Amino acid sequence: MTTQADAQPPCYYGDYIMLDRLLSCQMRESERRGRPAHDEMLFIVVHQAFELWFKQILHELDRVQEDFSHAPLEDTHLGRIVQGVERINAIFKLVVQQFDVLETMTPLDFLDFRDLLIPASGFQSAQFRMIEIRLGLKSEDRLLIGGKPFDAGLSEADRARIERALDGPKLIDQLDRWLARMPFVAQRDYVFHDAYRDAVVRMLEADVARIHASEFMSEAQREMELNAIVAALERFKALFAPDEGHEHWRLSLAAVQAALFIAVYRDQPVLQLPFRLLAALMDVEESLRLWRYRHALMVQRMIGVKVGTGGSSGYEYLSATADRHRIFNDLFQLSTYLIPRSALPPLPAELRERMGFVYADRSKP
Amino acid sequence: MTTQADAQPPCYYGDYIMLDRLLSCQMRESERRGRPAHDEMLFIVVHQAFELWFKQILHELDRVQEDFSHAPLEDTHLGRIVQGVERINAIFKLVVQQFDVLETMTPLDFLDFRDLLIPASGFQSAQFRMIEIRLGLKSEDRLLIGGKPFDAGLSEADRARIERALDGPKLIDQLDRWLARMPFVAQRDYVFHDAYRDAVVRMLEADVARIHASEFMSEAQREMELNAIVAALERFKALFAPDEGHEHWRLSLAAVQAALFIAVYRDQPVLQLPFRLLAALMDVEESLRLWRYRHALMVQRMIGVKVGTGGSSGYEYLSATADRHRIFNDLFQLSTYLIPRSALPPLPAELRERMGFVYADRSKP
Amino acid sequence: MTTQADAQPPCYYGDYIMLDRLLSCQMRESERRGRPAHDEMLFIVVHQAFELWFKQILHELDRVQEDFSHAPLEDTHLGRIVQGVERINAIFKLVVQQFDVLETMTPLDFLDFRDLLIPASGFQSAQFRMIEIRLGLKSEDRLLIGGKPFDAGLSEADRARIERALDGPKLIDQLDRWLARMPFVAQRDYVFHDAYRDAVVRMLEADVARIHASEFMSEAQREMELNAIVAALERFKALFAPDEGHEHWRLSLAAVQAALFIAVYRDQPVLQLPFRLLAALMDVEESLRLWRYRHALMVQRMIGVKVGTGGSSGYEYLSATADRHRIFNDLFQLSTYLIPRSALPPLPAELRERMGFVYADRSKP
Amino acid sequence: MTTQADAQPPCYYGDYIMLDRLLSCQMRESERRGRPAHDEMLFIVVHQAFELWFKQILHELDRVQEDFSHAPLEDTHLGRIVQGVERINAIFKLVVQQFDVLETMTPLDFLDFRDLLIPASGFQSAQFRMIEIRLGLKSEDRLLIGGKPFDAGLSEADRARIERALDGPKLIDQLDRWLARMPFVAQRDYVFHDAYRDAVVRMLEADVARIHASEFMSEAQREMELNAIVAALERFKALFAPDEGHEHWRLSLAAVQAALFIAVYRDQPVLQLPFRLLAALMDVEESLRLWRYRHALMVQRMIGVKVGTGGSSGYEYLSATADRHRIFNDLFQLSTYLIPRSALPPLPAELRERMGFVYADRSKP
Repeated sequence: MTTQADAQPPCYYGDYIMLDRLLSCQMRESERRGRPAHDEMLFIVVHQAFELWFKQILHELDRVQEDFSHAPLEDTHLGRIVQGVERINAIFKLVVQQFDVLETMTPLDFLDFRDLLIPASGFQSAQFRMIEIRLGLKSEDRLLIGGKPFDAGLSEADRARIERALDGPKLIDQLDRWLARMPFVAQRDYVFHDAYRDAVVRMLEADVARIHASEFMSEAQREMELNAIVAALERFKALFAPDEGHEHWRLSLAAVQAALFIAVYRDQPVLQLPFRLLAALMDVEESLRLWRYRHALMVQRMIGVKVGTGGSSGYEYLSATADRHRIFNDLFQLSTYLIPRSALPPLPAELRERMGFVYADRSKP
Repeated sequence: MTTQADAQPPCYYGDYIMLDRLLSCQMRESERRGRPAHDEMLFIVVHQAFELWFKQILHELDRVQEDFSHAPLEDTHLGRIVQGVERINAIFKLVVQQFDVLETMTPLDFLDFRDLLIPASGFQSAQFRMIEIRLGLKSEDRLLIGGKPFDAGLSEADRARIERALDGPKLIDQLDRWLARMPFVAQRDYVFHDAYRDAVVRMLEADVARIHASEFMSEAQREMELNAIVAALERFKALFAPDEGHEHWRLSLAAVQAALFIAVYRDQPVLQLPFRLLAALMDVEESLRLWRYRHALMVQRMIGVKVGTGGSSGYEYLSATADRHRIFNDLFQLSTYLIPRSALPPLPAELRERMGFVYADRSKP
Repeated sequence: MTTQADAQPPCYYGDYIMLDRLLSCQMRESERRGRPAHDEMLFIVVHQAFELWFKQILHELDRVQEDFSHAPLEDTHLGRIVQGVERINAIFKLVVQQFDVLETMTPLDFLDFRDLLIPASGFQSAQFRMIEIRLGLKSEDRLLIGGKPFDAGLSEADRARIERALDGPKLIDQLDRWLARMPFVAQRDYVFHDAYRDAVVRMLEADVARIHASEFMSEAQREMELNAIVAALERFKALFAPDEGHEHWRLSLAAVQAALFIAVYRDQPVLQLPFRLLAALMDVEESLRLWRYRHALMVQRMIGVKVGTGGSSGYEYLSATADRHRIFNDLFQLSTYLIPRSALPPLPAELRERMGFVYADRSKP
Repeated sequence: MTTQADAQPPCYYGDYIMLDRLLSCQMRESERRGRPAHDEMLFIVVHQAFELWFKQILHELDRVQEDFSHAPLEDTHLGRIVQGVERINAIFKLVVQQFDVLETMTPLDFLDFRDLLIPASGFQSAQFRMIEIRLGLKSEDRLLIGGKPFDAGLSEADRARIERALDGPKLIDQLDRWLARMPFVAQRDYVFHDAYRDAVVRMLEADVARIHASEFMSEAQREMELNAIVAALERFKALFAPDEGHEHWRLSLAAVQAALFIAVYRDQPVLQLPFRLLAALMDVEESLRLWRYRHALMVQRMIGVKVGTGGSSGYEYLSATADRHRIFNDLFQLSTYLIPRSALPPLPAELRERMGFVYADRSKP
């Protein structure tokens, strides 16, 4: 086991990870100009560490998206897809911690070299843009940066990279198609959305009865509660009505329904991994938003209300992206439409069986 | 949805989590004696936070162990078992962070109240002992504390709690039985351990040939490499020989083989969740060891080489437990016996099919 | 050292931290109603852990605010003030991690008991409100919760607690007074703000000259840059003009100037701890904002766009507080007014000496 | 402020951090051989991120050690020395988190490319060795790796780097000299170690009296307690006896006494930063030990009991280094010799004054 597979010449750590080259990439602009600023090294190293990890995220997306490009998706690929998305999340959680180190630099120390960098800016990270794009962020949903599109300041080469990402598949679309294809959701004599809608109606009707019977409520409260129920009912109906406007969702109606199906019947063997996948995508969305928010706070601390080196409005722009540049937001919205387990419509026995493993299939001889 | 299920009287946050009672549990001994030590509050709060979380871990173990008590284990329970173990790990990772807060107390501040606590000690945490016991730590594997058994200093009531835990099921035993029952590992015309052993032998023979042919090796190196292969072969043989001593393993031979099977064929649908379970148990083991080590470092920082308040040798004892009080160590040992994917014996088609989902079963009409 | 100070009866861990009482505070409402929801325990434990830590933060504020109430502040107290604020920050960083554990609960699991809690809500945490108030959050700056003031849903007892906090000293005001009293900022023949303003003017004039001389700029760029400099100059003037509107600042003009003085001359012995204090307060502000934002994300994940159990608009409210409920924001704004070290006006020798230690004072015989 | 300091040609993010070069350093050996292993990318990226951060740590050591090379150390440098050491600690805490990402790789995935790396190993990280050396780890204190010295497997160039580090100043020696020079510890009519020893003796004598008077103790207990006091007294005497063997300490006797002085009188203005420096060094020691332990656990998980790629015994070696490769251990030992604040000998008024700031000096006209 410990033998060298092909009797190659021995491998050396420093050569293997190309250390000489890697460690020759930290050239302080302030040093080049003869007035070395101590903390510029930290600034460079932290950005390089970000970019290394972004490369790794893109590498993970390569395989996840490749696996997703198979239709139907191979059941044997699902485990590693989930692991890939979870690893992307682990990386985002790590790089958020990098701000703890960067913030050991004080604003005054930053001023020692800040002017030398103008107009360079982290906004020019092509890899970060590619991650956003390949996950599914649409160019038209992006906020302008200082009145200009997000790729305004990029080099030819970086713009070309981004163009390729824009032309390629987006994870959210791949997810959409996979969800929309999900069997089980509509069978010969079981249509999930009918059963679910009926359960919702039953539950809300019971609520109405309980409200009318309650001794604890004032008339005003009673009216408010009843109005809330009417609103809830409307919301549910829209979810199941294909002809209604579906404008609040990015995913297709079929995909949203399948995601809901997965969320509520996640214990069925065939849904356990899909459930984890949806949870992992929500984790990524959350970590990405935390990254943006943390980034915004750091910028505000470093430069106050000044414009950033990239000419953007700094904090305002960055904190706005945390809220606006969402991708898998539909998965968060889904929680709005869950009903308690006790109110869930039961699955037909035949359907449950199809969602189990062959080895456990009692219908088989 | 937002209505009050049974029109109960309105629930109040402070009442619901019993805040008045909870916040009346922090009585500083130093204050009672008239010389309040500021940091004693931190000392109490951090230990109470530990105990709250330990209670939650025991609560998770309740369900995980209950689910495991079904034979065969329900496929629909596997998802929540994994989530339970993962939550236990998330809690351990959190409480390790609590040392960061505790270490904002300096040794000198600790001295302001330390003597008042003698001989109380975190070693007297019955809940922590119960967690260890229910996971599977054996009393006979425990290090003595200051020459005495681990429960020497405990109260009657705490000893009774520990007695009950000792009498109850242990997670590692439940895991062992579940693994040993795993179908697939031995079928009519496929016996995993034969196939695996053959693959190992083939791989090692190829290694031997390559070593003989290598131009890069000195005679001494060649001999060393060949000896290493012989040793590896012996190790593998022992793994598959029921009559050989199995003393290095805590799990049964059948369980170890099943765990190995899961590790190498984890992409098969039926093994994806079991694989995650084994990984989650390793995570728990690792977090628990990190907790112990972090605890040891904190004690050393706080009291140097003095004996702890509980009369133990403090750092020495605690850091030794990190290394010695292992539970799921067999899962770490397993890595020793993995072979590269390219050398794995292929699974028979019929077996692969049985490990898949019913819905995808092409053999069914 | 290890003897028992007053030969008291021996102390027992479980009694000392009042474990029986502490662990009797987790009563699941769902269990009381006969349908125990597994995850309600986690929900209770995480909120209790929050409250324990909030109590500790209030305990730290007790001493920090007491130390600050001395005028002049004792130099020997500064070290422990900084440690107190840093500990508060360490606690906030820890409790943010608690969301990682809480989010192992899925929205569907939350639904199993959510309706039983209505209208209880974390918004009803009196301790959290007290922390906000004592740090300095003003009632009039608070967002309404569902159209009502923040204390609308509180019990009599909790309202009384909050009233007391509102009547007591606020850390930001104490900081303001201490900063405004700072000697050094204005001396017989050295007035910091004059010297600083002159340095800024000199720096900006040099910038103007450089812009006129630049070959790399288009006419449009040149005009834009010149306008930016005019704007910067206005901003600086306002900072030093007592009669100008000071409406963008919460701190007094004298306090802002002192904070600026500390930031730029932080290496002087007498300013090293004050500088750390300002940095620690910024850390607390940042951690508090991260806590709010993380809380908002968790709520959105758990209940989507539904209203929270407390009747608030949930996510919208919480994420808005992250941006709006700021306290030490002036310290972040300060970065706007920093100038590079190379442009700083030098300190007069006599002043430098006064800022040093007695032992090193060469003027003394 | 936002103008370009010298009207240089505009700076571009990708050029500034040399992204093309940086991102060309990830060459998978498995890909070069035509069988790309997905996870090899992660393996390379995580090691490169380690090395980037190690470079930053060395950069911080450059300045900290340069500042320390001034005798006497400038009071104005102390703030940034502390910040430098704290940043080193922040970096170690970050890189420990990187193991969370690395452990998303499973042992089976590692096997896909592990053999290609032989005999490369993280043990060959010259930068890590340089950090250890410059902090103060002695070559003779190092464990052997597989029977060979730690630099056995290194290249010529790496060995030369290490040689330079071995020839240069060590932080612990610089600390030693600075501590030993500390004024205050011995004055005309105040000698700290006499005063402290007297206080210890007084305190222990009072303990003896209390033990004799206690009603709660059995005779056996009484004897045990009295013996403990005798042992404590011996320990203290040795600490203050220059002619006694000082073999348990790495620091000089004078340095140890000064560190003790700082620890107990840390509230005096002149000691506040020195106290933080000692605390920060303990944090670094602790983080470094956690890094080593975490590394050991990861290796055990990945390869079980097999030897590492570098020929070492892997886990055993690494976990042993966590315990044995200590540098600032004396600072931890110090806690053994602390006595409660209430027993501390008071500082003479004149000495207190010398430890304060000039501005507050009432003895000055």
